[in-house]
Amino acid sequence: MRTRPSKPEGLLLKTLGRAIRERREAMGLSQEELGDLSALHRTYIGSVERGERNITLTGIKKISMALQLSAAELIKRAES
Amino acid sequence: MRTRPSKPEGLLLKTLGRAIRERREAMGLSQEELGDLSALHRTYIGSVERGERNITLTGIKKISMALQLSAAELIKRAES
Repeated sequence: MRTRPSKPEGLLLKTLGRAIRERREAMGLSQEELGDLSALHRTYIGSVERGERNITLTGIKKISMALQLSAAELIKRAES
Repeated sequence: MRTRPSKPEGLLLKTLGRAIRERREAMGLSQEELGDLSALHRTYIGSVERGERNITLTGIKKISMALQLSAAELIKRAES
């Protein structure tokens, strides 16, 4: 889907993607490795990092666990 | 969908639903009023509160704004 960055909820998809990428890179993980750790496909990880996916709460939780963060902490980084 | 409460991400849907209901009731809002404030249908609000929906990040953001909380704060309440 195309996001609409002018809406707060569309913007949040973008900033969540950035927060995930930042944390993943800080941990020295590739998209493929994060995909393996979270049981999601690497191309899905890529689209989430670009803010192109309206990710579900269960997807956020899977990724946050793989990044060793709570889902709340990950969202907090996205909202900051 | 049916959630699987034994998985962390399925459990989180349940506890998020509880956190939303608790905040909504504390604000004295009906499901219909929260639906109006968040531009979501009251039956959708009901299913989210029961943890039956794998809600998206944009849905979480809409509801959190209507509840005058950040998305991170709402998720934090669900994870506590």
